[in-house]
Amino acid sequence: MALRNHQFRQAARPVGAVKRSDFDYVEAPVRAPGDNEVLVKILYISLDPAMRGWMNEGKSYIAPVQLGEVMRAGAVGKVLESKHPKFSTGEFVSGTLGVQEYATVDGKLLTKVDPDVAPLPVYLSALGMPGMTAYFGLLDVGKPQPGQTVVVSGAAGAVGSVVGQIAKIKGCRAVGIAGGKQKCDYLTQTLGFDAAIDYKSEDVKKSLREHCPQGVDVYFDNVGGDILDIVLTQINRNARIVICGAISQYNSTSGVKGPSNYLSLLVNRASMTGMIVFDYAARYGEAGREMAGWLKSGQLQTREDIVEGLETFPETLLKLFSGENFGKLVLKVADA
Amino acid sequence: MALRNHQFRQAARPVGAVKRSDFDYVEAPVRAPGDNEVLVKILYISLDPAMRGWMNEGKSYIAPVQLGEVMRAGAVGKVLESKHPKFSTGEFVSGTLGVQEYATVDGKLLTKVDPDVAPLPVYLSALGMPGMTAYFGLLDVGKPQPGQTVVVSGAAGAVGSVVGQIAKIKGCRAVGIAGGKQKCDYLTQTLGFDAAIDYKSEDVKKSLREHCPQGVDVYFDNVGGDILDIVLTQINRNARIVICGAISQYNSTSGVKGPSNYLSLLVNRASMTGMIVFDYAARYGEAGREMAGWLKSGQLQTREDIVEGLETFPETLLKLFSGENFGKLVLKVADA
Repeated sequence: MALRNHQFRQAARPVGAVKRSDFDYVEAPVRAPGDNEVLVKILYISLDPAMRGWMNEGKSYIAPVQLGEVMRAGAVGKVLESKHPKFSTGEFVSGTLGVQEYATVDGKLLTKVDPDVAPLPVYLSALGMPGMTAYFGLLDVGKPQPGQTVVVSGAAGAVGSVVGQIAKIKGCRAVGIAGGKQKCDYLTQTLGFDAAIDYKSEDVKKSLREHCPQGVDVYFDNVGGDILDIVLTQINRNARIVICGAISQYNSTSGVKGPSNYLSLLVNRASMTGMIVFDYAARYGEAGREMAGWLKSGQLQTREDIVEGLETFPETLLKLFSGENFGKLVLKVADA
Repeated sequence: MALRNHQFRQAARPVGAVKRSDFDYVEAPVRAPGDNEVLVKILYISLDPAMRGWMNEGKSYIAPVQLGEVMRAGAVGKVLESKHPKFSTGEFVSGTLGVQEYATVDGKLLTKVDPDVAPLPVYLSALGMPGMTAYFGLLDVGKPQPGQTVVVSGAAGAVGSVVGQIAKIKGCRAVGIAGGKQKCDYLTQTLGFDAAIDYKSEDVKKSLREHCPQGVDVYFDNVGGDILDIVLTQINRNARIVICGAISQYNSTSGVKGPSNYLSLLVNRASMTGMIVFDYAARYGEAGREMAGWLKSGQLQTREDIVEGLETFPETLLKLFSGENFGKLVLKVADA
């Protein structure tokens, strides 16, 4: 049986929000693996805010997706055929496999994952890039000390929810900023955050003052824009702001809004530092083992928002930017 | 003979640029020193951009000057009478003595200075707060490595000129941004900067590209605004931006302009960190000794822009914001 692949290839550089017409949805033959290659049947695809940035032209921390190229995405799948000594048919793997049904890639780009340790979608969430981003961004860049206050925006998202839970594990006060009562209740009632602020219905500055009576020592920023500016007014001396993302700005067609309160860094001898998870690749194993332990002990919980159907990709991706997703957004492509 | 003091007291919170009417110029009796106090005849007063911030109401790294209070300023003077065991008549001292002719202060707030080591105004410049700011801001926050490129704005000013010279001493490439050909020539021809960019007549981005062929590793920012935004486009991975000041923004009545290119911090895993020189007070001695050595060896040069007459204070202060001063701006109040 000759397998047929379906793929989303980038067709245009988006202006503002991504549209279906920014992609071509194509059928293509599946390439048989050559030496050291592995043919993977993709089961779950990770949808992440960073993907919007990869679609833009120009210098960034990673090359842009080229027009005509399969849209870049992390994914988990099952090995159908392997010509790499490390992998065997039937094993599960993760890697940057793209928005498609099948991928034929060099085995060195794959990592084995174990469905007995955690359900497969968790390898795109707490045990995948979002979890690694939270772990290294908070611990290595934010450097929270026990008793300090950690604020995180996008707190119900894949990265933010892990940031707040690690902050709690490390003995900090964790305050999350998220959109809507349902997400805020989830943060405090299920994940154990000390407080949650609904930016859609609350005066964020007033609520920050109330929920961070000792000020803000670490701010893990996923959103940028007005929220970053407001948190800047509440930081403590020597505070650390981790710049992980700026989802409020990614679709802006009128330029990025810079933080007008940045001089709070000066007054407070504070810092604002960018982080890219790929820099920590050599330490993913270390973090993964610790996170798996926390998952097992119940100290760390994850929630995946799973949407079925490869062909829904462009519209499903938009859920990230409207704030509609609740938990790590994952596209389910096939059953194992 | 009963001495009469003349003082500038803050009379109003300035809106935009400082005006003479923001002060009262008053005559007052000179208070005789009590136990542990010293009466100082002020000779030179330091005029610094930070003074503008001290005049504003509201929380900052230091309490605002209260209305009716003598305007805060660093100064150098001569001891007229001492009831503190550490000081004797005729000695020279520095301290936060205010914009006035005489100050009666607790001896513990004074530091002895030696006119045989350097001319008195230099104790308000390279051997004073500006020099300490440059030293600790560059070395402790900027952490330049030999061979790296250091860019500094306000480069012909009291802080910036020292930053660039220390960068050279530490084996870095030093590029200064200043206003006007005269200042730029001074940087390259007298102070040994590798290059200078005249922001008034050049395309700063283009010139940065040309003069920083290896990109920017450390940016020491004294000005904020558009220059900060432009430098952000040229930083290297792991670059350090030292936020020392933002003189372009201090008189703004329409709010501060935030750096819209701040996401360059993310892409480049770079940091932006505020610094306040007072945090390094315990190490001023260490820095002062090293800087005095560099002054003696000729590796470090200073230039003071000395204006005579206490009564010119409000207008002289404005030279800082118009970019008119050339070197450390000092108000000469009296002869020793």
